[in-house]
This record gives sequence, structure tokens and C-alpha cells, in this order.
Amino acid sequence: MSKTYKIALIPGDGTGPEVTRESVKVLKAAAAKFGFNLEFINYDFGGDRYLRTGEVLPDSAIKELKQADAILLGAIGHPDVKPGILEKGILLKIRFELDQYINLRPVKLYPGVDTPLKDKGPEHIDYVVIRENSGDVYTGAGGVTLKNTPHEIAVQNMMYNRMQVDRCLKFAFEYTRKRNKKNTLALCGKTNVLTYVFDLWERAFHEMGETHFADIKREYYHVDATCMWMVKNPEWFDVIVTTNMFGDIITDLGAITQGGMGIAAGGNLNPEGVSMFEPIGGSAPKYTGMNVINPLAAIAAGGMLLEHLGENEAASAIEDAIKFVTAYKLKSLAAGRMGYSTSETGDLVAEHI
Amino acid sequence: MSKTYKIALIPGDGTGPEVTRESVKVLKAAAAKFGFNLEFINYDFGGDRYLRTGEVLPDSAIKELKQADAILLGAIGHPDVKPGILEKGILLKIRFELDQYINLRPVKLYPGVDTPLKDKGPEHIDYVVIRENSGDVYTGAGGVTLKNTPHEIAVQNMMYNRMQVDRCLKFAFEYTRKRNKKNTLALCGKTNVLTYVFDLWERAFHEMGETHFADIKREYYHVDATCMWMVKNPEWFDVIVTTNMFGDIITDLGAITQGGMGIAAGGNLNPEGVSMFEPIGGSAPKYTGMNVINPLAAIAAGGMLLEHLGENEAASAIEDAIKFVTAYKLKSLAAGRMGYSTSETGDLVAEHI
Ligand SMILES: CC(C)[C@H](C(=O)O)[C@@H](O)C(=O)O
Ligand SMILES: CC(C)[C@H](C(=O)O)[C@@H](O)C(=O)O
Repeated sequence: MSKTYKIALIPGDGTGPEVTRESVKVLKAAAAKFGFNLEFINYDFGGDRYLRTGEVLPDSAIKELKQADAILLGAIGHPDVKPGILEKGILLKIRFELDQYINLRPVKLYPGVDTPLKDKGPEHIDYVVIRENSGDVYTGAGGVTLKNTPHEIAVQNMMYNRMQVDRCLKFAFEYTRKRNKKNTLALCGKTNVLTYVFDLWERAFHEMGETHFADIKREYYHVDATCMWMVKNPEWFDVIVTTNMFGDIITDLGAITQGGMGIAAGGNLNPEGVSMFEPIGGSAPKYTGMNVINPLAAIAAGGMLLEHLGENEAASAIEDAIKFVTAYKLKSLAAGRMGYSTSETGDLVAEHI
Repeated sequence: MSKTYKIALIPGDGTGPEVTRESVKVLKAAAAKFGFNLEFINYDFGGDRYLRTGEVLPDSAIKELKQADAILLGAIGHPDVKPGILEKGILLKIRFELDQYINLRPVKLYPGVDTPLKDKGPEHIDYVVIRENSGDVYTGAGGVTLKNTPHEIAVQNMMYNRMQVDRCLKFAFEYTRKRNKKNTLALCGKTNVLTYVFDLWERAFHEMGETHFADIKREYYHVDATCMWMVKNPEWFDVIVTTNMFGDIITDLGAITQGGMGIAAGGNLNPEGVSMFEPIGGSAPKYTGMNVINPLAAIAAGGMLLEHLGENEAASAIEDAIKFVTAYKLKSLAAGRMGYSTSETGDLVAEHI
């Protein structure tokens, strides 16, 4: 009897459902070929439901999501909803409630994909950012006082404890070892200004490295310098580990160097629990329903999901099919300029599997 | 009788003194040509003095600096000093004590300068980042508890009050109007996560814009998206205003797109007090004393200093001379690969004035 995985689907807002549909198409093709089953459970969380019912993500849904083998998310963000509500109420709520403490972002330029960087090809842009996903200013800690007066003060707290830092570093070191490319892990921080938080990170980094990962070379870069080198010398990097806010910034920078929103995917991992995979793009309201948005990022997220479930052959097949499509088919990754529609692009990948 | 300006010089560490020397050479040439006097007062603050005397920047020096018309800084950072001590003790101390609440960073690609961005020329890369320079996590507020235990907690506080936000926005709107290019000011933030701090910034931004700067178009970008567009579509930007930490990151990203450390300069402004100008590069210890480091950034900082003092003709002459040197002389901006030495490069600029 073949294995069955329960996948929670949250297509979300805007073009989220369109790209999720193609990802599911490809996942089904991979499952059929490699002999496992996928059971999809659909959740309609997003801006429309919120506007209709006032409900963002009920606690009962969190309980259900915890029963899934993995979650696939389309996109969150609605033009009629104030920024923060859906992001905090859905995306960040799942990340936090399911303790998905790692955000994994491969930055990889596929053949045929155009990068905005001069003289850089797939051999130069191939590294992974491991973004801590549970702490930092993302906890929401902070407040405001004297609001709407000339004396208003607003505060956000960047917080980390040793446990959070250690579990992230452990994942990062192990990932670097398993990846087995340059065996180099770079900590990205701001030791010269954020002296409390990065003193903690630096100490933990070197202690863990010395004690348990002597085979992994350790490097350190300030976040500002990291951005420079990601543009000028991306080939320097193997694996980068960083805090949540800096990670948010540098992963998007990395994404644009690998072709942008149309191609970049990420995973929110709880290595001991339920993980969630997503294309990094937004909900792109202006392209909604036009069948022109690029689904490759959502398809790549599906590939990461299968790899996470241990279906490595199927995951590789998806990656190979994406490479085939970028190298020989698509004219561009940009919405409406691909040369194929959203659904045709999904068909191309699915057929190649 | 011609005007005399008192300029405090802090050459600093590593290659700081070498590049400052060339900047002074050029400033003197400009002063001679445009009929004003510069009186330089030298300060030896930096890593060497700290290692020798334990003193970073005495309060008496702050008093003296407050008497200057402007400050020119070389570079701060010494390999034998723990990160944070010199940066906080000198650079940030001056910024804070002199209340230099604006960090002004023109991102401008000069003719002949190589950018790492594909298909982008001087016509695409020409915008200004206004970084708030007095608040955010840079205040140093925060702390650590249970240090060196498995339960250690470290916190940094990102703090802003309305006064800080307003004075920065006022400068930014006025600057955008004076610049008179696209008359567009973009706020760069993270409204969907940092809901306290950016709610304050956003409200203040729109209130001030509506009330006093209806002629200036307002835009908003998340910081992660800002990084993407700075790489993919830098021509979209005119003036960007942002918080201290995000500003630190995006200004370095901007710097690499305009040719990097060898060319990028910035000003730490107190519009009502004493301002400080600096090349954005570090102290580059490994090139120290070799006469190979590029002084153009320090020279450009000198140009910004003169513009700030109201010597606009002299400032333009420096800018033109830099453009001449980048367009027709230097082979590269990189240390040791310029085709000219540090002092020869300074000579070239000075001669052209
Ligand atoms: C939508 C937003 C809350 C989110 C984040 O900041 O983490 C996004 O930018 C991301 O990187 O996944
Ligand atoms: C040296 C450091 C403290 C400084 C900063 O972070 O502000 C530098 O990176 C800068 O941008 O001027």
C-alpha cells in the first residue's frame, strides 16, 4: 500500500488560488509518477473571508493544521484590508503557532532565467539563506504611548533568547553539512550596533561551531555588507544564517537576483512539527483571474514540500521540470510576458514529470 | 575679506588618513579657486589612540567639534578593537551628541563607473536616500539578562517619537522639493509587521505631505520590496526616506549599485548645527599605507561638505572633477586596480578643478 500525505492548502488572496492550482497539478503528477498519494484539504482563509466574516484564522483551524503533514500557501494580502491584519493574522500566526522557527530560502538562479546582475550565471548564484523565523521584532512586542499627540512614542522590541538562537544555528550548521558544497556558514548580523542581540548570536555561533561543527567554516558579515556582496559577489556564499528581520530583507534581495517573485519559493519549517511552503510573491491583486501570473514559484514551493516529506526523487523531478521550462520554454518570468499562461505553464511542468 | 571655514578632521583608522589627505588636497584646490579659506583642525581619534590610551572620544572633544563649521571623517574601525567600541564611541557618539539626525546618501552612478547591475547606466541610478540618523535600534536601548546561561535573553529596542519622525520627514519633503526631479518621496518601512513604529511614520508622512507638501507625490514601499526595486528598477526612485536601521542596509545596497565603497559618500546632518561628512567605506586595514585605496569617496564627501556650507560652485566643481576622473582616467574603482595610486587620484581631481 502506498503512502498518503495530508496537505493543507491555503490558496489565499489575489492570484494565490491560480498559482496554487498549478502547484497542486504538478504535485499530483509527481505523486502519480513516484507512487504516493496526496490528500488536499482546502482552507479559504484570506482577505475575502475576513471582509465577509471578520474572521482571520480561528484557533480551531490551527488545531487542524497541526494534523496535516505539510501546508501549502498561495499568497496573503488584500487591497481592501489594512496592512498587518492578514499578514499577522494568517501568515505570521501560522508561523508562530506551529513554531515554524526556520525560514528556508534557496537563492538559486535556474538556467535560462534572467538575473538583474551583470556577468552572473547559475554558477554564481546558488546559496541558501536560513532566516530565523520565530523571534526578533516579529514577535509584535512593543507599544505606543501618547498616540496622536506631538509626544507620541512608538517602540518595537527585537528579542532573542539562547534557545531560539541555538535551535536555529543547529539547523543551519546541520544544513550546511548536509548540503556539502563549500561547508561554510556565514552569520549575518550587526555586531557593531546591536551589541546585546548579536553578542548572543555570535557567542552561540562560535560555541556551537567549535564544539560540534569543526568541519564547517564560520564567517561573519554585517547585514549592510551582506547586501553589497549578494549583489557584487553572490558566489562567495554557501549558507547564510540570520535573524528574522534581516532575513526578511536579504531573502527578498536574493529573490530578485534569482529572477524575482515568479521563481522564488521558501519553506517555514518546524523540523519537529508541521511545516509550510510558499511562493515568496504577494497576492498581485491587479493580475487576479487573468491567468497570466507565473506559477513556477508556487510549483517550486511544492517541490520543497515534497523534499521536506522525504520524497526526494519526486522533489528532484519537479526541480528538473522547472529547469527544463525556464531553460527552453518561458520567454520571461514576468506576469503576462511569459509566452504561456499560468495554466499552460503548470501543464508544461506537469508534462515534463 | 574672504570667508574662513573651520573644518574638524578625523582621519581615523586604517586607510582613513590616506583618503582624508586627498580629500583635503582637493578641498584646498577648490578653496583657492573659489576664493574662500579652510582651516583644518586635526583630531587623532580612532583605534590606535584607543589602544594606546583607553580613550575613545572625550567629552571635551565633543565641545570642540561643536565649534567647527563642519567635520570630515576618514574611517573608523580597527582589527584589534572589539566591534562596537569605536563605532559607538566615535562615529555614533558624534552623530548623537551633535544631533545629526539626517543621514544623506546620494546614490548616483557616475559616467565610466561600473555598476554590478545589468543594463543600467547613469540615467537609471540617480536617487537619494534620507536615512533617519538619531533613533531606532541605534539608540543602544536594550539589555541582556541571564547572560552566559541557557536562558539568556537579549533585547534591543527600536524607538521613535513623533518629533524625530517629523523633523526627518520635514527635511525629506523639503529636500525632494529642492531637488525638483520627480518630486516623489517614498517612505520605506515595514507597516505589515512593525505596526507600532510604522503606523507612527505613516501617519506623520501623510499628514505632513497633505498639509504642507501637496506638490510632492507620496509613495510607500516595504523595506524588502525596496531592496528588490533598487536592484531591478532603480530608475523608479527619486528620494527615499527611511528609519535608521533600514537606512543603514539600503544605503549600502545603493552604494554597491553606484560602484561601491570607492565612490559612495554620505553626510550626517544637523540642519541647525554641525554636520559631518564621510566616505561610506570602512578602514580597509589590509590596504593601509599602500597608497592603493580609492580616495574618490572621501573627495566626494568633501564636495558634500562644501555644498552644505553653501559653497555650491566649489561643490559642483568637485563633482565635475570626479566625473571627469571616473569617465576618462580610472580603470577601476577597486583598491589597487585603479591604474593610479591614492595620491595620484587626488592629484587628478585637484588638477581638474
Ligand atoms: C508578509 C510579511 C509579513 C512576510 C514577512 O515579513 O515575513 C513576507 O515579507 C515574507 O518574507 O514572508
Ligand atoms: C559603522 C556603523 C556603526 C555605521 C552604521 O551602522 O551606521 C555604518 O555602517 C554606516 O552606515 O555609517
